[in-house]
Amino acid sequence: MTKQNSLSETVNLMRNHVSVRRYTTDVIPKEHLLEIIRAAQGAPSSHFVQAYSIIHVTDQEKKNKIAELTGNQKQVSDCSDFLLFCGDLKRLEYACKKHGIAIEHDTLENFMVAVIDTALISQNVITAAESLGYGGCYVGGVRNNPGQISELVRLPDKVFPLFGLCLGVPAKRNEVKPRLPLEAIIHENEYNEEKYLTILDEYDQIMNDYYKARTSNNKETNWTKTMADFMKEKRRLHMREFIERKGFSLE
Amino acid sequence: MTKQNSLSETVNLMRNHVSVRRYTTDVIPKEHLLEIIRAAQGAPSSHFVQAYSIIHVTDQEKKNKIAELTGNQKQVSDCSDFLLFCGDLKRLEYACKKHGIAIEHDTLENFMVAVIDTALISQNVITAAESLGYGGCYVGGVRNNPGQISELVRLPDKVFPLFGLCLGVPAKRNEVKPRLPLEAIIHENEYNEEKYLTILDEYDQIMNDYYKARTSNNKETNWTKTMADFMKEKRRLHMREFIERKGFSLE
Repeated sequence: MTKQNSLSETVNLMRNHVSVRRYTTDVIPKEHLLEIIRAAQGAPSSHFVQAYSIIHVTDQEKKNKIAELTGNQKQVSDCSDFLLFCGDLKRLEYACKKHGIAIEHDTLENFMVAVIDTALISQNVITAAESLGYGGCYVGGVRNNPGQISELVRLPDKVFPLFGLCLGVPAKRNEVKPRLPLEAIIHENEYNEEKYLTILDEYDQIMNDYYKARTSNNKETNWTKTMADFMKEKRRLHMREFIERKGFSLE
Repeated sequence: MTKQNSLSETVNLMRNHVSVRRYTTDVIPKEHLLEIIRAAQGAPSSHFVQAYSIIHVTDQEKKNKIAELTGNQKQVSDCSDFLLFCGDLKRLEYACKKHGIAIEHDTLENFMVAVIDTALISQNVITAAESLGYGGCYVGGVRNNPGQISELVRLPDKVFPLFGLCLGVPAKRNEVKPRLPLEAIIHENEYNEEKYLTILDEYDQIMNDYYKARTSNNKETNWTKTMADFMKEKRRLHMREFIERKGFSLE
């Protein structure tokens, strides 16, 4: 897998993405952060609803509390900027109210649109940040305690925290983690599940080599084994009830 | 809003993103497409589950059928490459089965992870494609008829179509559409809905100017009005039942 000769700066950036969890004490200049988010807004949005909000958490006590609520994720406290990405249908309520329309939040479709829109802009944020030399890390752990985090940053109904993103100046970069072979994720014209019987063995070998050789936290395992360990326990069983409490019935 | 002096190629690309629906008859070289998708795989994935598949639809009859099923979206037939992005927990089933673990698909959390993972990689695909001079357009319309589209490309249970992405060589580029003002989507430390009362009026003025002046399909409207028109009817009421039929109970 050559990392050289990439076709563009952007392609090169993406191929070399790693999660960065350790940062220097340098701060991202505010104008850079705003430029990053402004650029990220270019992301497509379903029917242009732009159903997202970003809570920029600058208060150190709040960052510390979120670090704790996401499972003691130190990088939340340490990062230059913590962004809480939220699916947001509240702003649309205001927009519609201007024209006498009340939205009903009872379709899975609208919930999915908010999740997709939020994910799309967030991916642009991390890529744009990396293009300026910064690094970062998603924090799905905000879904461990979505209720308490919502209260901490006073999210109204119709707004739910989806994940966080830590950004900062990298103090330590890990090795790039090999992704699934292309042929495992691309199917031509028809889905072909039979190929997994061989491809996953090949990928396990690649990941076993990677886990053994990497410079920190090296171990003897492979992809399917990490997945089996991870998936055997059901996680975040509160999400359905939480999302309903935020005003979505998901029928 | 200056488009000049961007801080990086990537930031510049994002700020200038537009949906491209009209393509030349040129074909994207296969090696470019693969390089784009390989780069896009660098996207973060929750606990590295990589819960997505891409159906690369190369069969013209299938493309035509999908164009019809998404509401006669001509660009699906015309584009060089149509990619159907699917949330995929099937591959994880295979991975876990290797270790004697059977996954239960009854948490909203796992469904959300698949949706988020799929959205993240897709955003990298469009950005990487644009960095090589291509253009494209998301097709959320695949959720108009997710069942028929699933059958057409033989998606098994635990795999669901989320959206399509048309890619090709742009024949026509539209003007960049102004996004919500930054202050409408960023909240510092606490969510502040009161600001919408003024910001949305400002944005409506910006969008009114844009809609009146744009070179094609110009009209007299604004953002909140288009949102009210769009949101007043509930859409895709079949999604919940469809997702359940694919084997997710979303409890």
